[in-house]
Amino acid sequence: MGELTLEPPFTNQRVVVSGVSPEIEGGRHPAKCVVGEVVAIEADVFCDSHDALAAVIQHRDLGEEDWFEVRMEPVVNDRWRGAIRPEQLGLVEFRVVGWVDRFGTWRRDLAKKHAADVVEAVDFLVGAELAAEFAKTAAGDDRRLIEGARETLVDADLTATTRVDVALDGDFAEAMFRADPRRFATEHERTLRIRVDRERARFSTWYELFPRSAVGDGETHGTFRDVIDRLPYVAGLGFDVLYFPPIHPIGEVNRKGPNNATTAEEGDLGSPWAIGSKDGGHKDVHPALGTIEDFRDLRDAAAEHGLELAMDIAFQAAPDHPYVDAHPNWFRQLPDGTIRYAENPPKKYQDIYPFDFETEDAEGLWVELKSVFDHWIDEGIRIFRVDNPHTKSFPFWEWCISEVTREHPDVIFLAEAFTRPKVMKELAKRGFTQSYTYFSWRQQKWEIEQYYTELNQTDVADYFRSNAWPNTPDILTEQLQYGGRSMYLQRLILAATLSANYGMYGPAFELMWSEARPGAEEYLDNEKYQLRAWDLDAEHSLAELIRIVNAARHEHPALQQDRTLRFHHIENEQLLVYSKTDPARDDVILCVVNLDPNWTQSGWTWLDMKALGLPADASFQVHDLIGDARYLWSGRRNYVELDPHVTPGHIFVVRNLSRTERDFDYYL
Amino acid sequence: MGELTLEPPFTNQRVVVSGVSPEIEGGRHPAKCVVGEVVAIEADVFCDSHDALAAVIQHRDLGEEDWFEVRMEPVVNDRWRGAIRPEQLGLVEFRVVGWVDRFGTWRRDLAKKHAADVVEAVDFLVGAELAAEFAKTAAGDDRRLIEGARETLVDADLTATTRVDVALDGDFAEAMFRADPRRFATEHERTLRIRVDRERARFSTWYELFPRSAVGDGETHGTFRDVIDRLPYVAGLGFDVLYFPPIHPIGEVNRKGPNNATTAEEGDLGSPWAIGSKDGGHKDVHPALGTIEDFRDLRDAAAEHGLELAMDIAFQAAPDHPYVDAHPNWFRQLPDGTIRYAENPPKKYQDIYPFDFETEDAEGLWVELKSVFDHWIDEGIRIFRVDNPHTKSFPFWEWCISEVTREHPDVIFLAEAFTRPKVMKELAKRGFTQSYTYFSWRQQKWEIEQYYTELNQTDVADYFRSNAWPNTPDILTEQLQYGGRSMYLQRLILAATLSANYGMYGPAFELMWSEARPGAEEYLDNEKYQLRAWDLDAEHSLAELIRIVNAARHEHPALQQDRTLRFHHIENEQLLVYSKTDPARDDVILCVVNLDPNWTQSGWTWLDMKALGLPADASFQVHDLIGDARYLWSGRRNYVELDPHVTPGHIFVVRNLSRTERDFDYYL
Repeated sequence: MGELTLEPPFTNQRVVVSGVSPEIEGGRHPAKCVVGEVVAIEADVFCDSHDALAAVIQHRDLGEEDWFEVRMEPVVNDRWRGAIRPEQLGLVEFRVVGWVDRFGTWRRDLAKKHAADVVEAVDFLVGAELAAEFAKTAAGDDRRLIEGARETLVDADLTATTRVDVALDGDFAEAMFRADPRRFATEHERTLRIRVDRERARFSTWYELFPRSAVGDGETHGTFRDVIDRLPYVAGLGFDVLYFPPIHPIGEVNRKGPNNATTAEEGDLGSPWAIGSKDGGHKDVHPALGTIEDFRDLRDAAAEHGLELAMDIAFQAAPDHPYVDAHPNWFRQLPDGTIRYAENPPKKYQDIYPFDFETEDAEGLWVELKSVFDHWIDEGIRIFRVDNPHTKSFPFWEWCISEVTREHPDVIFLAEAFTRPKVMKELAKRGFTQSYTYFSWRQQKWEIEQYYTELNQTDVADYFRSNAWPNTPDILTEQLQYGGRSMYLQRLILAATLSANYGMYGPAFELMWSEARPGAEEYLDNEKYQLRAWDLDAEHSLAELIRIVNAARHEHPALQQDRTLRFHHIENEQLLVYSKTDPARDDVILCVVNLDPNWTQSGWTWLDMKALGLPADASFQVHDLIGDARYLWSGRRNYVELDPHVTPGHIFVVRNLSRTERDFDYYL
Repeated sequence: MGELTLEPPFTNQRVVVSGVSPEIEGGRHPAKCVVGEVVAIEADVFCDSHDALAAVIQHRDLGEEDWFEVRMEPVVNDRWRGAIRPEQLGLVEFRVVGWVDRFGTWRRDLAKKHAADVVEAVDFLVGAELAAEFAKTAAGDDRRLIEGARETLVDADLTATTRVDVALDGDFAEAMFRADPRRFATEHERTLRIRVDRERARFSTWYELFPRSAVGDGETHGTFRDVIDRLPYVAGLGFDVLYFPPIHPIGEVNRKGPNNATTAEEGDLGSPWAIGSKDGGHKDVHPALGTIEDFRDLRDAAAEHGLELAMDIAFQAAPDHPYVDAHPNWFRQLPDGTIRYAENPPKKYQDIYPFDFETEDAEGLWVELKSVFDHWIDEGIRIFRVDNPHTKSFPFWEWCISEVTREHPDVIFLAEAFTRPKVMKELAKRGFTQSYTYFSWRQQKWEIEQYYTELNQTDVADYFRSNAWPNTPDILTEQLQYGGRSMYLQRLILAATLSANYGMYGPAFELMWSEARPGAEEYLDNEKYQLRAWDLDAEHSLAELIRIVNAARHEHPALQQDRTLRFHHIENEQLLVYSKTDPARDDVILCVVNLDPNWTQSGWTWLDMKALGLPADASFQVHDLIGDARYLWSGRRNYVELDPHVTPGHIFVVRNLSRTERDFDYYL
């Protein structure tokens, strides 16, 4: 670029189209939505001077020839908005086009002159000139209408009133808009993309269990068939995704013992994440769990219970994984001929070899790893929870997810990355459908509000879908270790209502298993390394409350998305108030949660009435879906009191009692 | 784009470089700086896993072959930063490159293992392998050093301590960094540009006067020679730019009378902005002002007084402008054969024809308009105040300014656009060096803080340089109409200290001419349409205070830039507190302004001590450059009281009284 040159030089293209949203890194990555979701598209559209403008969104499914058009409308401050509603899985592309609305300018100015009574003969002739020009590009009916209007405009024998009436006629304006040759139109320089996922990408309810503990006596190794017996229980709690840690053969070399002991005793089961042995690798099932036929039976039985299976894909190998012999160059070979273990210096993890994404055989490695997804897709699996994706290269994920979803656009990838914020966001940008979050460690009011505002009210919402987990086999926060039953309930309500996607690791959660390895944020006698006994019928089980919360989610579309999450003010730092709304289905949920697990807290709300679609002084009923109580509230200020030992939270349905329809501030 | 494909496929390029700043619309427009300014460049640089990374800025003057490199350092949260300091006018281009620092990773991990006493023999061999590889690309001295270190690392006869010492040696690390072949480096996909202007682009002090009123008796038509007599006065006030409304022949057809009357009487002078008559157009001077030789004498005399002339370029034509006959197709021709006047329906401006930027002869029009700048550049003018640029097309400005500054990189363009925010910003993006602002209408504390924070603390600061005017011939705000002397002083202090570029329309300002046309925000008997009498020696003149304020600006580099502007808290809504800082020259200015023109206001400051470069409990002297008083202050809380009838503001120099050097939070 020796010097700055402009293309095309001497252009008459006066309209600027910029700041299009959603646009992720200048269109480098697609935004995300689900089938049937209304996606608002905005752009700055303006030009010099004071001409009226027009703008449209042009969109099509990727690979189609023809563009569809949606008109945009000005909102405020040169911002324009329109919306599309993708109906097909896959990728949609769109672009924004703006132009000087010459007829609209003339019509607007004529109306002003008419109001001031200063219309001159030449004004009609200018309009007639436009009509003559536009008639050439008009379709049949429009052409006839336009030509008729033109004849009126040029007819000096007619009264000014007659000619003004025609000039300002709405049908004429519509016909002229359609016929506009769009002279010097500006097409935004980038065609952008939106990935259209299925509904479950946005709304899903996950239950994680270890199949090998499915018997529940702590002694008998469970099988896929034992899991089938558990299905009615899990489905009964209201879950729709059943997720297993890896089900593959477990490495025998350098196997870990209970509580992560570096040497295993005879009979120790090892960690399911140390994948691969003489019995096979990522495309095989652990013989102790059953056969692939057993797995297929489980998959089908789960489907009958409304449960979709999710598999854990952990791309790493035990030292005895078949890959190690077959492809030693996929791992990092050291100068002494050994292979590098996973390490976090000075710590070393001798039961695992990481793949080397700087291998010379990148193609061989990538193609093989992708074939792991393909293998399980062939087995009917469409949801994958990916273990530690942030230790594999971003370009690999971008390629792999793009290729898989091109062939199977209904596949969902959940990124299990608990790492630095930009790395987590990058994984979502590169294609992950859903992402684990910092939810587990966001416990104070200010940090929950700040984090969820960032996730849902900034451009992060265009590509990052949160999936909130109060616990996982790796995470037992201090809160849950010491908070007791009210803390468990609090975290259940928060996860289930803040994030449309949430999950729990059970039965540890509902049975409130809280014992941690000393000094760690992790379970003692973790199922990762051994079997556990579970008494599902224990009296203290939270099962019934989980069922209630999950039922609220399934019955209320407001809880099935995150875009409308809004926090409301209340004068108590221990009380959190927020709402979610589905304007199309007139559904409004308002949650109040007491973050203090020990003491009753009370306060006066300062509700954002617009977020609830209600006038400032409206009377309305709030109906608690947990305790089933109903209260009559009025306006912004209402009293709330929550004893955490009764319930740490309300999930209120907000019922409008006035005769006017709710008027929402959202664009959905 | 039939389907999404990734290039290059199967890459080992693991490092992400994104979010580079300054980057305006993805590099569509250059950022701005001045010669010698330190420009901070930042980027998100990260990769998967936990490798150490390295990143550099590569930069060069546009047109050069070779790139220079500056190392970047991590700041926080995967954000990296470095800086360049352009020394030449014109365009600089830069890009950010990041890669996995393999040696740095090894060195960091070895240090950790060494600390934990778990170093193994193979660890040294891994380092030696890197040394052998890097030695191949190392320069002579580095190669010798690296080879020596390699020999130590592989020598099993040496003690571990000796080998660790060499492994962690700083010189070895530096040599390895220089020699790094940067395997799989990621170069940010866009090379970005920065326009380097001269210092006056950032710091300038403007005085506007009507040459035809230069005699000052209200009766005699002034000339360029009369303006020469005024130069000592203007220079004495401390201004460095002297700006005239258009000096071209004024149209005689449809000329306006005093106070914008639609018909002129015999002898009425007309508006200087109605350009062109039988005496010539944009490249000619009005005969009543003198000859071009007179103008040249004025220009030279001004230079001797340290004043640079700025011309007003108003691209529009009176009906008798020579362009109209020569190029009727540069104007909008109506169906009745007439040319369209400027209009804002239902109003019409019959003394002006606007150019039609949709003309078929765009090339002819653009080239001619640019030649107007070239003409005056040939006459030694380097500063242009452009009238209403927002009624001419953006692509024209982008081309014109780019072409002019390519040939004359010292030319400054000030955009006189008072219109919608995005239009004003777009003009700056397209190339305008400075921009008029909403300053005149930002009068409350919250709106001043909000507006100036947007201008200086967001990405707007990368391309938009404010030029603040308390008044112009078009703007006499209600504040100035009714606020009296203390309001004039307040607005003077605000303009001169909030914006490094500011100006005033005189002598109207210093003589506090406050009489408005009823119902308008504009002067009665406006000089735009007639001569005015001015008594420069009037006792009430603000000249002396203007001189004091301008002297403060010239003596204090902190006031010569806007990037470090910070607002400080004070518990009084009528008091505004802000600071500006030049860390390199250890210069700190703190302003306190009473926005209430009538009453004494007082309050306790809550200073942001970091912004002042001082410890929280520091003692410091504040020395008022207006009243010359000195106060001893201490810490964040200090009492201020301002009687607007004495002075509405302090411009304090902040002198550090402690023995420690100031430690600034800025990166300049």
